[in-house]
Amino acid sequence: MTTFGHGGNVKHLAEISGRSPKDILDFSANINPLGPPEWARSLIQSRFHDIQHYPDPDCSSLIESIAERYGVGRDHVIVGNGSTEILYLLPRVLPSGPVVIPVPSYIDYTRVVRLSGLPVKTVALQEENAFKPDTDDIDALIDENGAIFLGQPNNPTGMLYEASALRAVARKHPSALFIVDEAFADFVENMDSLTRDRPPNVVVLLSLTKIFAIPGIRLGCAVADAEIIRRLKEMQPPWSVNAFAQMVGERALQDRDYLEKSRSHVTAQRTRLVEGLRRMGCFTVYPGAVNFLLLRIDRTDMDAAFIAARLLADGIAVRRCHNFEGLDDRFFRIAVRTEEENSKLLASLAKIIT
Amino acid sequence: MTTFGHGGNVKHLAEISGRSPKDILDFSANINPLGPPEWARSLIQSRFHDIQHYPDPDCSSLIESIAERYGVGRDHVIVGNGSTEILYLLPRVLPSGPVVIPVPSYIDYTRVVRLSGLPVKTVALQEENAFKPDTDDIDALIDENGAIFLGQPNNPTGMLYEASALRAVARKHPSALFIVDEAFADFVENMDSLTRDRPPNVVVLLSLTKIFAIPGIRLGCAVADAEIIRRLKEMQPPWSVNAFAQMVGERALQDRDYLEKSRSHVTAQRTRLVEGLRRMGCFTVYPGAVNFLLLRIDRTDMDAAFIAARLLADGIAVRRCHNFEGLDDRFFRIAVRTEEENSKLLASLAKIIT
Repeated sequence: MTTFGHGGNVKHLAEISGRSPKDILDFSANINPLGPPEWARSLIQSRFHDIQHYPDPDCSSLIESIAERYGVGRDHVIVGNGSTEILYLLPRVLPSGPVVIPVPSYIDYTRVVRLSGLPVKTVALQEENAFKPDTDDIDALIDENGAIFLGQPNNPTGMLYEASALRAVARKHPSALFIVDEAFADFVENMDSLTRDRPPNVVVLLSLTKIFAIPGIRLGCAVADAEIIRRLKEMQPPWSVNAFAQMVGERALQDRDYLEKSRSHVTAQRTRLVEGLRRMGCFTVYPGAVNFLLLRIDRTDMDAAFIAARLLADGIAVRRCHNFEGLDDRFFRIAVRTEEENSKLLASLAKIIT
Repeated sequence: MTTFGHGGNVKHLAEISGRSPKDILDFSANINPLGPPEWARSLIQSRFHDIQHYPDPDCSSLIESIAERYGVGRDHVIVGNGSTEILYLLPRVLPSGPVVIPVPSYIDYTRVVRLSGLPVKTVALQEENAFKPDTDDIDALIDENGAIFLGQPNNPTGMLYEASALRAVARKHPSALFIVDEAFADFVENMDSLTRDRPPNVVVLLSLTKIFAIPGIRLGCAVADAEIIRRLKEMQPPWSVNAFAQMVGERALQDRDYLEKSRSHVTAQRTRLVEGLRRMGCFTVYPGAVNFLLLRIDRTDMDAAFIAARLLADGIAVRRCHNFEGLDDRFFRIAVRTEEENSKLLASLAKIIT
């Protein structure tokens, strides 16, 4: 547990900026800008009494809904207190060989593998190639008795491997384990999820936290082979998924309209943000496919620390990326938010660079 | 994660009894019979918007409140998704020697230690001595490079070690680690908590889940030396304590009236239950000090399985204890609930035994 290295710590940012947390416009956490679905508030109110019972330790109804959505067997699904809980259990089911981690990527991949004592081989995605992920690199680097952790799409770059190439490389290395983190997949138009036609040595991490804007209660899951799921469940503390997360998750999985609406909002707003940022002429904007954008400031007289501090003075929080391996303090990440909020960010940035 | 071996799985019991979960009177989970404090509902309603922000990953306000309540430094406190989350982290900070576990006790002690691969030495509390815990046994059995897990009060027996004797034996074995689980301590009158005058090799587990009747969102913590806390936090997934648990916990720690009211209710009702049960003449009622009671049926024509099945037919769930090491299917555990509910249990039991 640490504040260091994650976005979304509004309490901390509010303290250093002398504002109340509710006066911070948070572009540092990659949460659905539409907020939680309307029905979530009344659902929790009407089922408040569930607070006094232990949650279903097997998450059985929720697992049934997830299995149905992804078209997999119930014994291929585990639910967690955020996908992060499952990420922290994963090292104990990994093969004994080295773990490849393309970077920059979500910093907890390296963290959990290091904590487990397994050797880590980080591999740089190339800045000059816009950090584009390439399955040929995996093919060349993966150990037959090892594993790989990758974001699909990758955080903070927002980019995707070609899904069919990823399936092919996983099939080519059947004794290696592929951890494919699709935590942001629901924001991607026409996503080709690895849960479909999944090679047996692929573990897919999924999140409901981000797309349904419920980081306060958290909900994630994973789809993998039954034996891996069984071993993960064996190590998971009982009742780790709270009652509210289970009830909201079950309902959320039926709300396909909300997914559609969120995705089209994000796509339109991301396009608008990219245009606005490129027009400023001093940012490299990486062509992500998701609800956040990686930016590089290309002026020698300012860095991301400077920009983040000036934005915070305007009540806007962004995610500096200096602590991502493979990046430095020219880089920062912004979430895609509502039209009005994005306009505020663009206006504040325009002011800072002039 | 498993249903097997825990109380409180009302959903499962409802299914096998053909009832709705809300029609089950649950004596199998040891939750405050007064339910959550009145203010909890309005607090969660008024702060529903917190659901869309990541919880404070450091639980800083909550840790401050806990440190204040127990009179310890903030760096001596870790908060968890229930005390169970912390229990599951503990094996990674244990010394390498064997782990002593007096039984019968909470079955997850043995489970987590076995999962970690450390050797376990279970030690039977003596049935003929009413399972009374004795620090002389610990003194004789503990390995200088080992550890011990014990419940204070112990679950399912409800009994306590003499606190000053426990402090003395911990001081006598300074290189062994003592895990003292005080999850039910808030229900005990005049509790002498090991958080007070704590020897440095004692880790005290604490729970807010039970006394504040919030198992649906869960909240636990531990008090220990700063170096142990630091290592536990290092391995804990970020954001494991949800926003609702943090806000309810902070407020709950100020509500001393609720603690007093709950304790005196439980003491009075436990006394009444003990009298009613002893009057039936066929149960051994162990003299616990807490919000549950261990019972033994002393008739050869019926066992706890029979009694539990007959009670469930009346819509009452109890905890069979056959899967506690050191017990068998003569034993079952009941929670102390409200006067009306306890009367229903007594009436149903009276009907079954005649």
